[in-house]
Amino acid sequence: MPLAFADRLNNVETSAIRELFKLLGKPGIISFAGGFPDSAMFDVAGIRAASERVLAEEPGAALQYGATEGYQPLREQLATFMQGKGVAGLAPEQLIVTTGSQQALDLLGKTMIDPGDKVIVEGPTFLATIQCFRLYGAEVISAPVDGEGVQPDALERLIVEHHPKLVYLIPTFGNPSGATLSLERRKRVLELAARHQVLVVEDDPYGDLYFGEAPPASLLALSAQVPGSREWLAHCGSLSKVLSPGLRVGWLIAPPELLARAVMCKQFSDAHTSTFAQATAAQYLKSGAMPATLAHVRTVYAERAQAMGDALRAELGDAVEFVQPRGGLFLWVRLTGARGQERDAGALAKRAIDKGVAFVPGTPFFSQNPDAATLRLSFATADVAKIREGVARLGQALKG
Amino acid sequence: MPLAFADRLNNVETSAIRELFKLLGKPGIISFAGGFPDSAMFDVAGIRAASERVLAEEPGAALQYGATEGYQPLREQLATFMQGKGVAGLAPEQLIVTTGSQQALDLLGKTMIDPGDKVIVEGPTFLATIQCFRLYGAEVISAPVDGEGVQPDALERLIVEHHPKLVYLIPTFGNPSGATLSLERRKRVLELAARHQVLVVEDDPYGDLYFGEAPPASLLALSAQVPGSREWLAHCGSLSKVLSPGLRVGWLIAPPELLARAVMCKQFSDAHTSTFAQATAAQYLKSGAMPATLAHVRTVYAERAQAMGDALRAELGDAVEFVQPRGGLFLWVRLTGARGQERDAGALAKRAIDKGVAFVPGTPFFSQNPDAATLRLSFATADVAKIREGVARLGQALKG
Repeated sequence: MPLAFADRLNNVETSAIRELFKLLGKPGIISFAGGFPDSAMFDVAGIRAASERVLAEEPGAALQYGATEGYQPLREQLATFMQGKGVAGLAPEQLIVTTGSQQALDLLGKTMIDPGDKVIVEGPTFLATIQCFRLYGAEVISAPVDGEGVQPDALERLIVEHHPKLVYLIPTFGNPSGATLSLERRKRVLELAARHQVLVVEDDPYGDLYFGEAPPASLLALSAQVPGSREWLAHCGSLSKVLSPGLRVGWLIAPPELLARAVMCKQFSDAHTSTFAQATAAQYLKSGAMPATLAHVRTVYAERAQAMGDALRAELGDAVEFVQPRGGLFLWVRLTGARGQERDAGALAKRAIDKGVAFVPGTPFFSQNPDAATLRLSFATADVAKIREGVARLGQALKG
Repeated sequence: MPLAFADRLNNVETSAIRELFKLLGKPGIISFAGGFPDSAMFDVAGIRAASERVLAEEPGAALQYGATEGYQPLREQLATFMQGKGVAGLAPEQLIVTTGSQQALDLLGKTMIDPGDKVIVEGPTFLATIQCFRLYGAEVISAPVDGEGVQPDALERLIVEHHPKLVYLIPTFGNPSGATLSLERRKRVLELAARHQVLVVEDDPYGDLYFGEAPPASLLALSAQVPGSREWLAHCGSLSKVLSPGLRVGWLIAPPELLARAVMCKQFSDAHTSTFAQATAAQYLKSGAMPATLAHVRTVYAERAQAMGDALRAELGDAVEFVQPRGGLFLWVRLTGARGQERDAGALAKRAIDKGVAFVPGTPFFSQNPDAATLRLSFATADVAKIREGVARLGQALKG
């Protein structure tokens, strides 16, 4: 008799992207497949200085067990950081530190989702969110997205039809869509939350990575303008894309009764996030280095995004359509099939590997009704020369 | 309409110990209530040297996203560490790194437990294990324990009666019992696992903290001697009690099909454990400092355990009975009620706070049939003078 596993595992299927990632080890491949920042952007000197201060000034606390809610100096720094992004009056006690924002999603699932519950996400959305919620037995409904983010009318129809436990959105520089919800739509979404009394989860790992003008304020910041919306809003933040994923520092802001239950669930999930990593992040934020780090990252990614957009237009022409990203890490492409060219991104991905370039086909990012003509390109981890060469290879793959 | 939370939250009750911990802030209190090591034992210089090497030699990898299975250099060091404790031939691929061993428990729950499943634990056992498994809907059955650990005959009867999904044991210096499963019983437990085809989970955070002779080898090490047992055995390890809880580095060793599913669940729980913390732990283990650190910690805790046992006998006499611990952090006491003295540890805890000493009553550590006369004392965090003073206060509390 083999081991008998829990039924929840039957809801999840992870092979699609894993199979692809196995091919990435091929020598000489240029990868646009990753969902991570460029290691060369890390402020190693600043992080080293922060961790040295931690071990000089607060070793006992930083190496000991800590409060499940988070290391208090970090909660204070993060509250200040969020205030700087327009979230007026946020107290440290209104956020908890999570082990990356992935854990915030897991805690929301554990706290909110019963088997058979429905949740609404964007189509497409972050793959690990779909799987995370499915592990708690959720039926994941897909709401349509365009270049301005989720469509509020369609979203409202789905809310009325499905009575979801929550609505999960990446309103700013979405993964994988790259789309940013317009200011008008942000207010509409907040009104929907309040009117239909449905929890809206705003995942915001990319909002600081804008290339020109800053994006509209977060749903959290805007909730002050929409009566009754704040009590139906949770917000997930992360240092992974702007400072370092390896610290695994994210945070969750939510109404008090939800936050208290998330803390209880976190207590039995990992007790607390690494205090050493939390204290290091707190010292880093306190040092005042973050604005310069952000400015640097924005400049580099902006240049790469521009290079990728230019190369795509030059090399692939009318075979592709996309919205030029104004921030984030991703460029979302639709194969048009013009002049009989390839429209299946999965088939193209296999040919692309042969030509020495990798990307992720769009299908796995849809919880329902996948668009097989879509694909995600990351412009974050290759330099401009590699981006041009990689897109040229993509052009060759498209030609067969 | 308020937020509607998941039903699983109804299975968990966390107030018992929290209420007590609120009182610990009282000035001048001597606490035997903690479940943590003494911060003064941390090898801060060694950890600083390790983290400096990490940021000098491998900053890109240590600050980047990492494999869900764990940072490979740490998996290699941990495999070597376990080999040194008698687990012959353990490959790095046979273990995954977890965010503290608490996460290993959570992943076992997520992977194995359906609502209504039964699991067997020791009575008493680690409180957070009971709650963690209950959050997945488990019915937690309690198996009787004596000074030599769980009683195999009783355990077998419970296995036959309840067909549990898993049996969870802390065989060495148990929390809170302090008991150590004898060698003979270890072999019996492994035979039960193989015969009844039931997963046994060995949680071993304290095994390295022995005071004189080393305890019997772990179930994992012994499984090589009991045919068929290894495939029904999971083992949770941790650096929290021996090096630093703040790093949040634990590990899980389990049969391949279980380990693969735990990795999948971890992917959607926190993606991976802090690479910075993992790389620091790996460099620390590689430095060769661990044996000296362990020797130091053992010496200090042994002295404190002896002082606490001596003081209890001197100050409380026949009002208490206990087995003198041979390792770990805890001394488990039963109030005898001799000569009409207090037998209710909860009542005593309140009076003890008034006298300036704190401990945790035993009741919450039982998933069933609590013994209200029991209490847990930690000898780890107070020095010998404080231990003597604290036990004297306990004696005063007992007298009224």
